[in-house]
Amino acid sequence: MITLASDFGSPYPAAMKGVICRESGARIEDVAHDLPRQDVRAAAFWLTQTLPYFPPAVHCVVVDPGVGTDRAALVVRAGEHALVGPDNGVLLPVARELATSGGRRDTVEHGSASPDSQARQDAVETFTWAYDDPASSTFHGRDVFAPAAATVHETGVEAVETLSRASPTDDYTDLQLPEPAVQADRAAGEVLVVDDFGNAITNVPGEVLADAFGGQVAVDGEPVPVRRAYAELAPGERLVTVGSHGNVELAVNRGRGDDAFGVAAGEGVELSW
Amino acid sequence: MITLASDFGSPYPAAMKGVICRESGARIEDVAHDLPRQDVRAAAFWLTQTLPYFPPAVHCVVVDPGVGTDRAALVVRAGEHALVGPDNGVLLPVARELATSGGRRDTVEHGSASPDSQARQDAVETFTWAYDDPASSTFHGRDVFAPAAATVHETGVEAVETLSRASPTDDYTDLQLPEPAVQADRAAGEVLVVDDFGNAITNVPGEVLADAFGGQVAVDGEPVPVRRAYAELAPGERLVTVGSHGNVELAVNRGRGDDAFGVAAGEGVELSW
Amino acid sequence: MITLASDFGSPYPAAMKGVICRESGARIEDVAHDLPRQDVRAAAFWLTQTLPYFPPAVHCVVVDPGVGTDRAALVVRAGEHALVGPDNGVLLPVARELATSGGRRDTVEHGSASPDSQARQDAVETFTWAYDDPASSTFHGRDVFAPAAATVHETGVEAVETLSRASPTDDYTDLQLPEPAVQADRAAGEVLVVDDFGNAITNVPGEVLADAFGGQVAVDGEPVPVRRAYAELAPGERLVTVGSHGNVELAVNRGRGDDAFGVAAGEGVELSW
Repeated sequence: MITLASDFGSPYPAAMKGVICRESGARIEDVAHDLPRQDVRAAAFWLTQTLPYFPPAVHCVVVDPGVGTDRAALVVRAGEHALVGPDNGVLLPVARELATSGGRRDTVEHGSASPDSQARQDAVETFTWAYDDPASSTFHGRDVFAPAAATVHETGVEAVETLSRASPTDDYTDLQLPEPAVQADRAAGEVLVVDDFGNAITNVPGEVLADAFGGQVAVDGEPVPVRRAYAELAPGERLVTVGSHGNVELAVNRGRGDDAFGVAAGEGVELSW
Repeated sequence: MITLASDFGSPYPAAMKGVICRESGARIEDVAHDLPRQDVRAAAFWLTQTLPYFPPAVHCVVVDPGVGTDRAALVVRAGEHALVGPDNGVLLPVARELATSGGRRDTVEHGSASPDSQARQDAVETFTWAYDDPASSTFHGRDVFAPAAATVHETGVEAVETLSRASPTDDYTDLQLPEPAVQADRAAGEVLVVDDFGNAITNVPGEVLADAFGGQVAVDGEPVPVRRAYAELAPGERLVTVGSHGNVELAVNRGRGDDAFGVAAGEGVELSW
Repeated sequence: MITLASDFGSPYPAAMKGVICRESGARIEDVAHDLPRQDVRAAAFWLTQTLPYFPPAVHCVVVDPGVGTDRAALVVRAGEHALVGPDNGVLLPVARELATSGGRRDTVEHGSASPDSQARQDAVETFTWAYDDPASSTFHGRDVFAPAAATVHETGVEAVETLSRASPTDDYTDLQLPEPAVQADRAAGEVLVVDDFGNAITNVPGEVLADAFGGQVAVDGEPVPVRRAYAELAPGERLVTVGSHGNVELAVNRGRGDDAFGVAAGEGVELSW
């Protein structure tokens, strides 16, 4: 199986599918093609929320504001999965997850500060992918990454090192999703992404709310109810909850949390309880 | 085959696909992931316009404003099809269609007041689906419904009752799409949904226009041409037609009917002729 | 394999998929369902940018402002590919490409004025597809073209003429994408489409910029840098580049070219150097 994720919108991903179908009979599944445009960090976050649910696969990821410059192409092996994409960090956060879970997420995990953080990093294998001068300098998804993903799939994830284009490297761009500052009675974090419902997903781990359900927490100084489900409050009411990602989320029942809280991706949020 | 329909936008459905691919080799086809958000009735309508064209399949439907509350999960068997989703009524209108057509729509049918209405209802089999405390209280598409759909698919639609999680029940939330009031020279209905072209699709059966093609009908008192095809009029002209659903539709050739008629989903429309 | 391309948005394409799945086990891949609405020329352009990358397939294309009128349905055989859609010209530009490349694009080609232009045209085989009175006059994608694509797929592209519904014809609507006027020091063209990034894609062949990279070109009289990659300039800066289609493109690094240059699809652009 080959999955595709990009910020291309439409119809560019179809050219990538065509290229892959010429080189491989692999099943293709779309992850998303409307990842936040040219936002490497947001894309990296969404990959951690989607790829770990898949069985072993080759994941072709193209969020690539540096397309056509001298940034390298990267193949990352993580457990039984492989990731193919630009060397801008987008592949690394999810690779660390896939490497140590065997690529399987059964429960929501948190905390890059966990004891196995180094083990996770060590279990990720990175390769520079050598590519010929591509047909375009603006669409490496079609000209570089889709062919690479097909080749890796046909060769097998376990045999990446047998490919002459793949050179093991430790010289790559890393990316860490930002860590919140968590104290006994407060946490300072930020909004990582806003989802299509308008839920503002922060980097604050949901554990901080463990004793707050049914009560309140202060968001930037204003008290807001803490609930497990959106529908525990009336339509239009603001709430703080723990989303499917395990993080604190600012939401509105049947409405948009980003509007109601006046927040956007990248902005700071302070919680106190 | 497993089909997926939701109001999730992107990229949440990818996690559902991953979960299914771990448990089943079933082909997955997307129906839509931009169903009108948290609008159970609109979703129920669109399901009647899409699922009956599919061969027997397991259809996983998640439009679920009550996620995380105590609303049940439901499996509905309808002919050779199974539907999996929240117990909020969204599955029932299409289930009645699938149950009596053997899941095959060759012609457009109308009229829930037809003589076989009770037979349709009787042919629908409903099961409560017991689920363990899910990983999240906000994303049962991933944690409850996708795994349920995979299990039903692997077990076989004909064997749902052999699954210990499935308990036959008659205690479920039903939903009927609203019926218009049709008289000899007028009909009072409402707009069920507006499609992406801007066509306002009403619940008034197209039969009322049988003698009006080429002539006019009054929409809320204003005369409007009745035509079979949009392009029978000049671009920008308003028309009344019968859409692919068999219902009266308010449209504009190469334009948006909702804007031109000033209507939105849920609003009343009166036709007279 | 059957590919689907339309301007339907969602969820209408699901009904087409269902119809195809009833008649054929073919793999289905979406090309796009948000092609510029009812814009036959823009759709024709996007098809030339996507379908030639696919292996031999049946491509079902529905951008059909004349649905329900007496416009014919067409099957076009082009090399090992077949195209199915309305007789409004949308299939022809890509058919000429597919016919002579054997359906394979390895390099970007330009110039319908090339010597093999006539050969391309001759290699395209067109058939009128006879269809029964369809269930709807507004959704031939579901009622005419999807069934036709399934039938052509099951019969085989090489055997279209054995189908009683298919009658060879030379009487069809052709479409040529507009040609720019290229002189020694200037080119007058137009914007064909704007992609989802906001890049304004013109019909001016990229060759005119061959000596200009690193320098400037005048766009409607204003000097603009010419670069191979968006990221060669600072975010927000305007540039002229050659896109993945091989054409001149007006762009902004990490921004929207259409807004920055004040252009839209169909508008003229003059370049001088």
